[in-house]
Amino acid sequence: MRGRVQASFDRQAMMATLGAELVSVEPGRVEVALRHDARFTQQHGFLHAGAVAAVLDSACGYAAFSVMPPNAAVLTVSYAINLLAPAAGKQFRMTGTVTRAGRTIVVCRGDAFADTATTPFAIMQATLTAVYDRPGIKH
Amino acid sequence: MRGRVQASFDRQAMMATLGAELVSVEPGRVEVALRHDARFTQQHGFLHAGAVAAVLDSACGYAAFSVMPPNAAVLTVSYAINLLAPAAGKQFRMTGTVTRAGRTIVVCRGDAFADTATTPFAIMQATLTAVYDRPGIKH
Amino acid sequence: MRGRVQASFDRQAMMATLGAELVSVEPGRVEVALRHDARFTQQHGFLHAGAVAAVLDSACGYAAFSVMPPNAAVLTVSYAINLLAPAAGKQFRMTGTVTRAGRTIVVCRGDAFADTATTPFAIMQATLTAVYDRPGIKH
Amino acid sequence: MRGRVQASFDRQAMMATLGAELVSVEPGRVEVALRHDARFTQQHGFLHAGAVAAVLDSACGYAAFSVMPPNAAVLTVSYAINLLAPAAGKQFRMTGTVTRAGRTIVVCRGDAFADTATTPFAIMQATLTAVYDRPGIKH
Repeated sequence: MRGRVQASFDRQAMMATLGAELVSVEPGRVEVALRHDARFTQQHGFLHAGAVAAVLDSACGYAAFSVMPPNAAVLTVSYAINLLAPAAGKQFRMTGTVTRAGRTIVVCRGDAFADTATTPFAIMQATLTAVYDRPGIKH
Repeated sequence: MRGRVQASFDRQAMMATLGAELVSVEPGRVEVALRHDARFTQQHGFLHAGAVAAVLDSACGYAAFSVMPPNAAVLTVSYAINLLAPAAGKQFRMTGTVTRAGRTIVVCRGDAFADTATTPFAIMQATLTAVYDRPGIKH
Repeated sequence: MRGRVQASFDRQAMMATLGAELVSVEPGRVEVALRHDARFTQQHGFLHAGAVAAVLDSACGYAAFSVMPPNAAVLTVSYAINLLAPAAGKQFRMTGTVTRAGRTIVVCRGDAFADTATTPFAIMQATLTAVYDRPGIKH
Repeated sequence: MRGRVQASFDRQAMMATLGAELVSVEPGRVEVALRHDARFTQQHGFLHAGAVAAVLDSACGYAAFSVMPPNAAVLTVSYAINLLAPAAGKQFRMTGTVTRAGRTIVVCRGDAFADTATTPFAIMQATLTAVYDRPGIKH
């Protein structure tokens, strides 16, 4: 399972471009690391919510993927994100955790932390779906 | 107002890095263009939802900003995004439209279209807030 | 299709208890009416967001149902709601409109209006799913 | 603080009509109980998501209220809810927990459990705001 997650993560050019790295993969829980990067900031100099959301979405997506059958691919149906504070820091940790896995729908919660903080600066509630044998959608 | 929006947009390194361009700014409505870029794809080769969300968030944010007082800065509180279909196309248009502007909270809807499509492939419901005189937050 | 929608609506005790009435059903668009009722108010005397959300959810759900195959049942996967202003008024109209219908997932937008207002006081973005042959889930 | 929460909860006719009861109030965490009631069911006989959402919204709202200054009133700005499974059971527990409290915006997570289950059947991510001296808005 960890191999499938890592291989899929490695196919996401967006994650490589952002410099995101898969830190840990447990069944139902994934952590991704991200560094501050001046290329991905918003108008106030903080990391753009789009970068934060992209990595949180990946953390949630792979948490869901980690509990799906080997022949499933994962797609994000929707998510809600709250930006609780600016993404102020040098290093960020994004976690995705499965809340409940249904037959095709998996729901995850994501948390984004800056540096050594234990209170998240952004949280996500994500709805993922397993897809099978859909043309153009690899695992 | 258009000058303030353009100047703030130009300070978002994330938008420049993604290659996003401000297409039009009306009071309460903003359109941003984005091209497919292999650097920002997900594992299936489509534009990553994170890139889509970042640009939709900007379109909504500047739509809100366009109806705020000149001394306000805008922050995204939260948004919900639905990814209705893969971001398959060469050129994308993201629109943000103010639904209702309150005293500090402004709510917008965003729509993302691929090429010549008239049905969106992603939609957003975003909550923005006006902030005043907050250290480190420029307009 | 209208008969199926009305029959399913009539089986929702919650709608009868709230006094909600199906006003119109078009393919992909449903409108439901609701009156102010002191039994369903919040601490400030306005209609409770829970009543508003329940009826918006139904309007979206039946809009989705209206474009599904006859043997499908509809379930709400998730929704995001923004409460833009108090539900101040005597009579409320809630509309649900299909944004895009996929193979199993249908996404709708909902709008809630008070009396003669044309700006909504609440909006919803809802994710519905078609289910087939699931025990205990009738159409 | 507990007295303010209980007094405000008691002014919500919707909670009384639903039969919801405040079970516990800690700073930043509130639990509300609800029983199955045939008046508030959906077309499949389960408790309607609107009833679940109304009580989860209250649990989140009072969790936020519990960490606000005594002269603040609380309003729900928005929430996202995922319905992970039908509300099947006799007795339900809804918890609201503050994730982060800012100057005016407070973000909470809500969880709804049926009977003795430890996995939620519905989860919420809610954005609340403190309001002061607004006409018609009591604490």
